[in-house]
Amino acid sequence: MNEITRCGMQYRNDNMEPFGLKSCHASYLLEICRSPGISQDMLARRICINKSNIARQIVVLEEGGFVERRSSQEDKRVMELYPTEKTLELLPELRKVLGSWSRYLTQDLSEEEIELLAKMLDSMRERAAQWMEEN
Amino acid sequence: MNEITRCGMQYRNDNMEPFGLKSCHASYLLEICRSPGISQDMLARRICINKSNIARQIVVLEEGGFVERRSSQEDKRVMELYPTEKTLELLPELRKVLGSWSRYLTQDLSEEEIELLAKMLDSMRERAAQWMEEN
Repeated sequence: MNEITRCGMQYRNDNMEPFGLKSCHASYLLEICRSPGISQDMLARRICINKSNIARQIVVLEEGGFVERRSSQEDKRVMELYPTEKTLELLPELRKVLGSWSRYLTQDLSEEEIELLAKMLDSMRERAAQWMEEN
Repeated sequence: MNEITRCGMQYRNDNMEPFGLKSCHASYLLEICRSPGISQDMLARRICINKSNIARQIVVLEEGGFVERRSSQEDKRVMELYPTEKTLELLPELRKVLGSWSRYLTQDLSEEEIELLAKMLDSMRERAAQWMEEN
């Protein structure tokens, strides 16, 4: 799984560079588009990245005009993250890049196998996230 | 899959630190133990890491006394990698760390599901490695 992920990072780096993005930014932007207003801490938990890395990359994404940070109305200390227009326009392209990699990887699997794989990965992701919570 | 891998990296970092190793080193050492005398280039292909990263980490592993580099008898330009005694002694511990993470992740899956998952991941890994070869 590590090897597949490493190759995927390379693939995304190659294909996201034209947008001014690095491979790791895909997870950030997809999750922020899925939950506009998500806090940095929640984002860290959802995509399993530690808080200092999140903070650093969010600055990069903000400077690149991909993300807007606003402090929460309810608690000024909490930073909420929103996608910019630029990111919303980019989203279909980004999904295309990720989708074509998934299709490339799973081309030898049947529809049923792919469905089962997704289910198993979900279960494993939940366990992985749970471990992160506890540690 | 990226999220599971990121959590796994954190887990390995935590558990491999006592040995003086970082998470990424697990793939290196396992592959070198599996194929003693493997060249740096072949190692890069097998574990899907680019050549400059491999070169940098091999220096770290050599300085730490985990890996020995010898130039090939047949072609002096080719560097062959061998595990040291220290690494061979460490191997069971390393396998234990990786095994316990796998078991933790897949605890909700049946034996049959785990077997199928391994088969699917192998097929995907082959495709990923093929993409790396071609790019």
